[in-house]
Amino acid sequence: MKVSRRAQVPPFAVMEVLAAANARRSAGESVLNLCAGEPSTGASEVVRRRAVDLLQSGDLGYTEAMGAPPLRAAIAEHYGRWYGVDVPTSSVAVTTGSSGGFMLAFLAAFDVGDRVALARPGYPAYKNILTALGCEVVELDCGPETRYQPTLSQLQEAYYGGGLDGLVLASPANPTGTMVSPGDLAAIAGWCADYDVRLVSDEIYHGITYGPEGEQTPTAASYLGDGAVVVSSFSKYWAMTGWRLGWLLLPDDLVAPVDALAGNVALCPPALAQHAGVAAFSDEGYAAARANVEQYARSRRVVLDRLDDLGWGPVAPADGAFYVYADISRYGLDSVTWCERLLAETGVALTPGTDFDGIAGRDWVRLSFAADPAVVAEAVERVVAWQRTL
Amino acid sequence: MKVSRRAQVPPFAVMEVLAAANARRSAGESVLNLCAGEPSTGASEVVRRRAVDLLQSGDLGYTEAMGAPPLRAAIAEHYGRWYGVDVPTSSVAVTTGSSGGFMLAFLAAFDVGDRVALARPGYPAYKNILTALGCEVVELDCGPETRYQPTLSQLQEAYYGGGLDGLVLASPANPTGTMVSPGDLAAIAGWCADYDVRLVSDEIYHGITYGPEGEQTPTAASYLGDGAVVVSSFSKYWAMTGWRLGWLLLPDDLVAPVDALAGNVALCPPALAQHAGVAAFSDEGYAAARANVEQYARSRRVVLDRLDDLGWGPVAPADGAFYVYADISRYGLDSVTWCERLLAETGVALTPGTDFDGIAGRDWVRLSFAADPAVVAEAVERVVAWQRTL
Repeated sequence: MKVSRRAQVPPFAVMEVLAAANARRSAGESVLNLCAGEPSTGASEVVRRRAVDLLQSGDLGYTEAMGAPPLRAAIAEHYGRWYGVDVPTSSVAVTTGSSGGFMLAFLAAFDVGDRVALARPGYPAYKNILTALGCEVVELDCGPETRYQPTLSQLQEAYYGGGLDGLVLASPANPTGTMVSPGDLAAIAGWCADYDVRLVSDEIYHGITYGPEGEQTPTAASYLGDGAVVVSSFSKYWAMTGWRLGWLLLPDDLVAPVDALAGNVALCPPALAQHAGVAAFSDEGYAAARANVEQYARSRRVVLDRLDDLGWGPVAPADGAFYVYADISRYGLDSVTWCERLLAETGVALTPGTDFDGIAGRDWVRLSFAADPAVVAEAVERVVAWQRTL
Repeated sequence: MKVSRRAQVPPFAVMEVLAAANARRSAGESVLNLCAGEPSTGASEVVRRRAVDLLQSGDLGYTEAMGAPPLRAAIAEHYGRWYGVDVPTSSVAVTTGSSGGFMLAFLAAFDVGDRVALARPGYPAYKNILTALGCEVVELDCGPETRYQPTLSQLQEAYYGGGLDGLVLASPANPTGTMVSPGDLAAIAGWCADYDVRLVSDEIYHGITYGPEGEQTPTAASYLGDGAVVVSSFSKYWAMTGWRLGWLLLPDDLVAPVDALAGNVALCPPALAQHAGVAAFSDEGYAAARANVEQYARSRRVVLDRLDDLGWGPVAPADGAFYVYADISRYGLDSVTWCERLLAETGVALTPGTDFDGIAGRDWVRLSFAADPAVVAEAVERVVAWQRTL
């Protein structure tokens, strides 16, 4: 029987790595897993305690499609606290992870045949969801010379080279960790408003940054009035991956469409996660998240201090998120083979760049340092020793 | 800025009813809510206890995109226990509610422009999701004369009248509660296989039926080999609505496509719900669900015993699910007005048929009896008295 053309999604190379890592672990051999895009810690105590209370006495039925009102209000307040940006509660849509948020935002903003630009390398699900929804993806070639982020001239070229309906921007980005400056974000948001291009800003790694304390990470929440959409999540900063909780900030014209779509495609996000998620915005919730980021900072330092020994280059600036994305081509192996052999010969699991970049990715690998500094140090030691054998 | 055409989803009339009901309740007036498609009970004690344990000591990180292996195995076993059908664990995909299951099944099976048939009246999200995904919906007019279910001659007509790629079949159906017999299901599944039409069988109300004890509800799990897809859920029988947990049973050709799509569009279903959901298949979990169904049976009896007094007709046979769908046209009001006035004048909330049927729905209303029999009895009493004033 017919299978859809849009189901022909390329499999992730990291799944092969994970399967091999699991097989190795099952055989009793050591594995240092630095391939997952997931904090090794879990949800904070305060969120777990709230969830336990709710399980014992709470209503876990459907919530409103746009999310439980107290959580929408808490998310709106978060933007005042962190960024000094006034976001009305009515602009917030709680979603089933950022995945659910992307699905709703893309459905609401883009029709079949619409053209949407995004950076290569980048998170592969953007491209795969858009393609499944019948949109045309315009990849912008973003290397070291553009700090792995799109430029206005690339956007201009895409616009005049076939039209452009949307742009997905990620800052801090996966896999490169690079960030867009406040000035660049303002310029991109302004350009999008002028050209009627819908800006979808992936901010799921906000809060996980390594600049000077108090440095402002710019948010597209400042540009909702220009039509921008913000996508965010509880998965990374609050380490609540399996809870499947995220949110959208919506410009006025997308509020009613997302509300109507959400009731049909999702009904509502998970109720327990929503009700407990309010506690993530408590003092204790923020403190637990900050402690995680401090650990990532130590693990990041462990890698960056050994870059000379690792002999990788170029290496994307890991300004934020918890990844080091590095060119390993000098070792003479394509990244899939490099990762397979590294795992088989040392037990260290990294992700081949081919998952993020269908063209140059065979030269790159991604190392996730969202793990204990001691584990990261041991992994780096093994990589350095192993590379000498190549 | 442009909003997508596919975001033009018609709003549900029931949302207006719910808003009016909430306003009434906030004003301190009594509301008897029989408009929700949701059990008034919640998850069983055994599931909640398992969830509490997991919150205190478990890993709530991402699971495999197709779901946690123990839950996939438990779902497969359920088909042996209930139906005597052998379903391999590899055919099971855990999903984020049946909503997530429909999204994945439709994406995997149907391309933009494909034509998919479904019964009118029916659950509106089928139509709205398919339309959002660029598919063409072919509504089959299903009234009392076809027991509200599609017939082979209607399918034949749709096939030769423009082509047909898929069929969504629901048994027990929402809003009518009607079921497809084992013979009819076999005939429809056989026809779909012969004509290369993908059968998507919505079985989320399985287990909630009112026939003789031990009566077999037929499942399309018997026709996976013919290309059929089964969609099911923990929301109704196990009363776990807000947990957002459901599943698909997939024919071999859709396993890899759904796996690849799921990793991109959802990452994984909620982890806590998955791990705790295994307990739904314990003796205690089944017993709690059976007790709920026994309550629905008592509430159903309360309504059916007063059909003469209610003066509705025709009334769809409520063989399963927890709805009575009835023609109220003899009272001279369209169903939206009838429901608005009923709520305003008596505090009883029902759902206008327009949510399920864009053509005849103005003559019909849906009453959900998934509530305490005393509440249902009081609501019926108020409806009977109010109708005398019309």
